[in-house]
Amino acid sequence: MIQVGIAGFGNVGRSIKKIITNIFDMELTAIVTKRPKQVAQEIKNSVPIFSFAVPKEKRIDVLILCGGSADLLEQGSFFASRFNVVCSFDNHQLIPEYFNKINRSAKSRKNSAIICAGWDPGLFSIMRVVFSTILNSNNVFTFWGEGVSQGHSNKARSVDGVLDARQYTIPIESIMKHIRTGKVQPLVPTQMHKRLVYVVAESGADKKRIKKEISSIPNYFENYLTEVIFISEEEMKKNHSTFPHGGTVIGCDNNQLMEFNLKLNSNPDFTASVLLACARAAVRLSGERKTGAFTMLDFPLSYLCSLDQKNILKKFI
Amino acid sequence: MIQVGIAGFGNVGRSIKKIITNIFDMELTAIVTKRPKQVAQEIKNSVPIFSFAVPKEKRIDVLILCGGSADLLEQGSFFASRFNVVCSFDNHQLIPEYFNKINRSAKSRKNSAIICAGWDPGLFSIMRVVFSTILNSNNVFTFWGEGVSQGHSNKARSVDGVLDARQYTIPIESIMKHIRTGKVQPLVPTQMHKRLVYVVAESGADKKRIKKEISSIPNYFENYLTEVIFISEEEMKKNHSTFPHGGTVIGCDNNQLMEFNLKLNSNPDFTASVLLACARAAVRLSGERKTGAFTMLDFPLSYLCSLDQKNILKKFI
Repeated sequence: MIQVGIAGFGNVGRSIKKIITNIFDMELTAIVTKRPKQVAQEIKNSVPIFSFAVPKEKRIDVLILCGGSADLLEQGSFFASRFNVVCSFDNHQLIPEYFNKINRSAKSRKNSAIICAGWDPGLFSIMRVVFSTILNSNNVFTFWGEGVSQGHSNKARSVDGVLDARQYTIPIESIMKHIRTGKVQPLVPTQMHKRLVYVVAESGADKKRIKKEISSIPNYFENYLTEVIFISEEEMKKNHSTFPHGGTVIGCDNNQLMEFNLKLNSNPDFTASVLLACARAAVRLSGERKTGAFTMLDFPLSYLCSLDQKNILKKFI
Repeated sequence: MIQVGIAGFGNVGRSIKKIITNIFDMELTAIVTKRPKQVAQEIKNSVPIFSFAVPKEKRIDVLILCGGSADLLEQGSFFASRFNVVCSFDNHQLIPEYFNKINRSAKSRKNSAIICAGWDPGLFSIMRVVFSTILNSNNVFTFWGEGVSQGHSNKARSVDGVLDARQYTIPIESIMKHIRTGKVQPLVPTQMHKRLVYVVAESGADKKRIKKEISSIPNYFENYLTEVIFISEEEMKKNHSTFPHGGTVIGCDNNQLMEFNLKLNSNPDFTASVLLACARAAVRLSGERKTGAFTMLDFPLSYLCSLDQKNILKKFI
């Protein structure tokens, strides 16, 4: 049995606690959190809870870091120096820096760390490297959505007069169709996606100003085709309380088309599932004394699986 | 520069010779063939040609075995004891046995061998293991087609009175749609595919008998929904002279859907592209003294790529 701990008990942490009960070779034996009392109450003390100071004698084969990228930048190194860890760090621009940081602290204490494990980065990274090397070209395109982006929702929520906001990223279908024909051209994300924002405004707020301010937030909305729709608090609760997401990676030329599609009713559940499969791989790497930081491109994919070589050959090859 | 040799000069061998000219870190430096004279004539002596006895001083970093599974069963071991090799062995039932055989001979001479490298087995194996471990279930389904199956075409051709035949494997769309809803159930290939066979018959042949005989060939057509259509030799030449293929792997439950699609105008070209990317990985494995047999699940996917870790992080993660 792999003894799994989780650090952070938000959406992804909750998903892991739920999903791990169906995984025959893993059990959840620790939750590390800044809010031990609240979490204890929420989970009715069903799992041992620790604040940051986990006692030395506590066995945790792998600690799954469930925080967002900002938390991970702060805590990742600390945990990687104490445990084998897995995380879904997804701030693409900071990945090289984060990789080096985790690599150093994991290596220094002979731990194994799998980072950037989710769907993007993660599954989509796998598709990008496979498609691109097989095509021997850069004609590989990533579309996100249709789905909720938490980051964009938070940004919209930060605008004055906005009580609540939910942002859907939507791939532009006509561009997708064009790419599939193999007549590809360089494209940037602003040409490939539109952004749909549902907003609950304070009563009496200037909706025109809110619309304009959201649409011009740099990096998040600027240069995108952005639509802002005002709705009531009740409507937001009723129609926009889940976290669906998904995306598509397309690699093609005139002669061949590879396409990977993902449709998720629950983004946190799916990320949790990827993290759990990678937790198994981290324990395996650690057992082989392969230490330091790894992405999903840096270990054999058979490590995700509990079967031995013979059965993998039979079942999957 | 990686010095690449190929063994066997059929459809896949020809595709490799064509495609490798666009790959900046590889060059074709040897063709090993049983028909040295004909091949020399065909390629106008543009590449050194050897019969099975390749001289010891000839540098070949990796030899790509381009024969079919029957050839590979005969020759694979011999080549794996002399060179790093890559092949697309695809007789699913014999894979465990073939793996052991190649593993022994490659290990005995400290060579690295990547086997079963193509789209199925190969890319589809990657999808099956990733989908299945993330879903933590067996709800992963492989559809082949729409495309030409050489094996089935040959079988149809073996029926008395058949001059030529071309078999298209076609996934049954309604079953695919049903699976995507997450309401999955155990399925076998005969429920998931139909078979469409174009036949050129000898003049005066009993078409009814041919139809019946083809439809009842065990393992190939029996229990499948099979349609046989008789056409003229001219029509066969005009409309059925290319080798398109493709397929789909679907993994899903009520909550999530992962789907990989492949559409290939040229099956041999695509297989050649996968083999070439794996040739790079075989040389890398060999450089790290990781010897024996590997499938595409047994080495990090970053090995397919010529970039270093830093650039892989930037470009693909």
